[in-house]
Amino acid sequence: MRKRFSPQQHLNPQNSFAAFRAMIESPELDFLMEAHDGLSAKIVASSGFRGLWASGLAMATAMGLRDANEASLSEIIDVLDRMEQAVDIPIMLDGDTGFGNFNNVRRMVRRLCKIGIAAVCIEDKLFPKINSFFGVRQPLADIDEFTGKIRAAKDTQTNDDFTVVARVEALIAGQGMKAALERATAYRQAGADAILIHSRKPDANEILTFAREWAGRAPLAIIPTTYYTTPTAEFRDANINLIIWANHTLRASLSAMKKLTLKIAETESIADTENDIASIDEIFSIMNYKELKHSEEKYLPKK
Amino acid sequence: MRKRFSPQQHLNPQNSFAAFRAMIESPELDFLMEAHDGLSAKIVASSGFRGLWASGLAMATAMGLRDANEASLSEIIDVLDRMEQAVDIPIMLDGDTGFGNFNNVRRMVRRLCKIGIAAVCIEDKLFPKINSFFGVRQPLADIDEFTGKIRAAKDTQTNDDFTVVARVEALIAGQGMKAALERATAYRQAGADAILIHSRKPDANEILTFAREWAGRAPLAIIPTTYYTTPTAEFRDANINLIIWANHTLRASLSAMKKLTLKIAETESIADTENDIASIDEIFSIMNYKELKHSEEKYLPKK
Amino acid sequence: MRKRFSPQQHLNPQNSFAAFRAMIESPELDFLMEAHDGLSAKIVASSGFRGLWASGLAMATAMGLRDANEASLSEIIDVLDRMEQAVDIPIMLDGDTGFGNFNNVRRMVRRLCKIGIAAVCIEDKLFPKINSFFGVRQPLADIDEFTGKIRAAKDTQTNDDFTVVARVEALIAGQGMKAALERATAYRQAGADAILIHSRKPDANEILTFAREWAGRAPLAIIPTTYYTTPTAEFRDANINLIIWANHTLRASLSAMKKLTLKIAETESIADTENDIASIDEIFSIMNYKELKHSEEKYLPKK
Amino acid sequence: MRKRFSPQQHLNPQNSFAAFRAMIESPELDFLMEAHDGLSAKIVASSGFRGLWASGLAMATAMGLRDANEASLSEIIDVLDRMEQAVDIPIMLDGDTGFGNFNNVRRMVRRLCKIGIAAVCIEDKLFPKINSFFGVRQPLADIDEFTGKIRAAKDTQTNDDFTVVARVEALIAGQGMKAALERATAYRQAGADAILIHSRKPDANEILTFAREWAGRAPLAIIPTTYYTTPTAEFRDANINLIIWANHTLRASLSAMKKLTLKIAETESIADTENDIASIDEIFSIMNYKELKHSEEKYLPKK
Repeated sequence: MRKRFSPQQHLNPQNSFAAFRAMIESPELDFLMEAHDGLSAKIVASSGFRGLWASGLAMATAMGLRDANEASLSEIIDVLDRMEQAVDIPIMLDGDTGFGNFNNVRRMVRRLCKIGIAAVCIEDKLFPKINSFFGVRQPLADIDEFTGKIRAAKDTQTNDDFTVVARVEALIAGQGMKAALERATAYRQAGADAILIHSRKPDANEILTFAREWAGRAPLAIIPTTYYTTPTAEFRDANINLIIWANHTLRASLSAMKKLTLKIAETESIADTENDIASIDEIFSIMNYKELKHSEEKYLPKK
Repeated sequence: MRKRFSPQQHLNPQNSFAAFRAMIESPELDFLMEAHDGLSAKIVASSGFRGLWASGLAMATAMGLRDANEASLSEIIDVLDRMEQAVDIPIMLDGDTGFGNFNNVRRMVRRLCKIGIAAVCIEDKLFPKINSFFGVRQPLADIDEFTGKIRAAKDTQTNDDFTVVARVEALIAGQGMKAALERATAYRQAGADAILIHSRKPDANEILTFAREWAGRAPLAIIPTTYYTTPTAEFRDANINLIIWANHTLRASLSAMKKLTLKIAETESIADTENDIASIDEIFSIMNYKELKHSEEKYLPKK
Repeated sequence: MRKRFSPQQHLNPQNSFAAFRAMIESPELDFLMEAHDGLSAKIVASSGFRGLWASGLAMATAMGLRDANEASLSEIIDVLDRMEQAVDIPIMLDGDTGFGNFNNVRRMVRRLCKIGIAAVCIEDKLFPKINSFFGVRQPLADIDEFTGKIRAAKDTQTNDDFTVVARVEALIAGQGMKAALERATAYRQAGADAILIHSRKPDANEILTFAREWAGRAPLAIIPTTYYTTPTAEFRDANINLIIWANHTLRASLSAMKKLTLKIAETESIADTENDIASIDEIFSIMNYKELKHSEEKYLPKK
Repeated sequence: MRKRFSPQQHLNPQNSFAAFRAMIESPELDFLMEAHDGLSAKIVASSGFRGLWASGLAMATAMGLRDANEASLSEIIDVLDRMEQAVDIPIMLDGDTGFGNFNNVRRMVRRLCKIGIAAVCIEDKLFPKINSFFGVRQPLADIDEFTGKIRAAKDTQTNDDFTVVARVEALIAGQGMKAALERATAYRQAGADAILIHSRKPDANEILTFAREWAGRAPLAIIPTTYYTTPTAEFRDANINLIIWANHTLRASLSAMKKLTLKIAETESIADTENDIASIDEIFSIMNYKELKHSEEKYLPKK
């Protein structure tokens, strides 16, 4: 994995837009790792990833909400604002259907550009959405309505390098490969900078077929949550540009918290858990309390 | 550990105040487990705990901020609001120094009562505070100033059972046992419903000494983060009312996320991680997507 | 106009629910005056009104947004929370279409009950809505879909006296009196506690016809913005329960601010404006700075 | 008064920083007019002003709060974000004491730069502050502590043209001219880009004396709330760079809303008020609903 940006200096937020655009347009396969709050963002960035996926499912779950537009745009923006402040690498928002119609998309894009979020992915479902892995054959947006959202997003962005990714749900909706390709084509023509082709099949066949037919007409992103066993090399060979590991950070957190709290509840003791979990000092380290101490010396009056 | 409240019906928020008060006033030792967002709150509640500690350190860290009042009261209230909605068990806020002076304490208490937060703990340090485990011998608030905050909090609460816990930092500040007892006495006389005596010693000696001298004049709470090896039975014998496991949920999350994201960054694959982390279905289960499906059948028009 | 609640003590928020319910169910005609932030709420309350209309149009305009669901539920909740804290009289939210589907309505209702908002009015249009006085013949929600929202709201409320008012847009949509009555009937049967019949005609004829045909089957509210010349006595005779003066507070503010800032811009002086505007002391008085001073004496240490 | 920026296109937020800096550094006298929300911001901008003063007193009052740091930084940021979106002219925040210590100042500055707020004024009082026109002889911050905040602000800004104005409260605190000049000098040396010298005298004598002694060592701003009768020409002659009309927009709004709601409460009618207040169409006009209609035609599918 390539070297990430230096953690020492916070990137000019304006630059994260260009960094993301370069990443997704590069022929080289790249990766986004899910983060859902400031802490997970810092962890993902320090693990060497070059970009974050601000997952709708993960952010909602962390808030105690369901991935059905229960969280408002304001709540999402607050999370993103803190994530952006926490890291130097670009962030792509999983923007669901855009929180309403084209006009809601416009307010979303304006605010994302303002707080330095480099990219957004919007999907061709109906507001309020429900998670793509839940329920079956959800209805899709009309192509005309969804391309209107894409055009509105592109016309609204205040940073030239802001990236709009159009997510095609046709395969999951059971509409077949031809419909998926038609939609992707329409979205690209409407101005989408990249296509995210989504699938919930246990294998990557339909994704690989799509990639072949798509033939690199625009950068291609995928989310291999269900077809996780497919070797990454196959996606590289298929000229996929971006793999999004979309919810694993949260899922690791969930299982660890559950295991720990069950154990403490049962044993009424933390004595046996100390070595299984991060130390307080590790929190101080990842949050850079040392910087605060140095700054106190620099800015507070000598006593 | 005793049975938690039924998850089926959300407690009347008014009742969580009484539930917390009963818990801390009961002679039986009880436990609060740290939570920092809606998800961790749900996990802690489902593990059987009867109350939550909304830790300032953990909430700040989750946000990507430092435990030095970098998060505003509004940001904390937003988190608490979602935590309260997520669970049926009462929540105590780690309220730091109260976000300013007595008047800021009053606005905090009004808002906590409004959104159903059953209790707050305020500590006798200066705003902006810094985490008690960081740095040394931090200055304490004047007793008169801090008792003014306690009185203001008690005069402001709009629910009779709202609980104000006064946290004594005198031992950590190196002011000794006598000062700690004097402060605790003054805080109780000012109206504090309970005392939290804090220590950062690796053993529980000073805590046990305090408990003996305190002699049950008001309910007593402790946070055994550094003296974690002391058996819980000793605290029970010392007539401690409440043990707060103050940051372990977050620390379990942090280490799990770090391990996972490092592994995925190195291997460029999620194939080997699937069994180590919670499944998507487990997310759907803990967030009760089934209820959403049932409600769609109940409230959406038949097609 | 009847005497308002004493300003001295903040009403138990739980009581404002009952107060609103009593007001709308009373055969006596009552009035809600528009407010859009904490200051306007205080002014309206001190003018003697017994209830507030938290207007979607006015709140959006104050924020610099359009009445087209540009403001998120979170932004609205923040405003309401401060309005509720500012006054002792009950508040009805102009809840538009409920910010999405039945599930968004449920989250809205839960949060309103939590922060002490006594009532909500939801209207039978589509999300995102546009102001009823703008554009023509906007499409209406299916009756089945809208009654699902009403049922969801009533099943969700956590205060028995929370009031759900169903707003009928059929007359404005040009669907005629019969359709309006059918919708109102269906909404009442679904559980709506009252009906708001809306009109944008310059006279009150269709409103009065509706009231006659409705025959008191449930409390009736109206918004005489366009038919403002009709004497209030006619509405009283027609057994209307509630008149909502829906946007006048904001409109008075707008024209006054415009006049003043134009004058200052032209004259480059404030010398001639001092007597036309409230004094600083009047701000201190309406915001009760005296209480703060008294409390400083009570809670701050003597120096 | 000079021509404002074209309302047609939203300024690149990055440019508002440079615009403000140029304005305050220009030898020509300029004016900031108070605004406290999106609507008042739009009105002030359309009246021809070239900059906005986001007044702490006015924003707090609009929220129903007191100018005593009852509003959190988050609440202020939310208001500023909407104000910035509403207008093309630069905004200076009345940043009080910076919401805590140097570290809180840093978070404030980071967020202001992020959302396009061009300047902040911080004052040398203690957190939590109370309005300068209320109470007497409030204590001041130590010079060392306050210059630490100024240095922290300048070191933190992410836009080179961000402006930090240091507000000197020494005259109001009764510390005399010499102390005021010493403080202003220290603040300038610490990096403040301009000085705001504040007075609550009914005449401008001490302000004019200060200006003479200050001798243009850095741009000078004033707030002639109490000495409002002094002709603007005198300030121009005294080489003041910036006059802030700090609360008049809100005060005009307050008196107009009060007069109107009292009249409606008394008459139980709006018939006689229609001509005294802005029309609904004027709201549609100032909020540019026409643009929304055009955009619907552009982005929504044809039916």
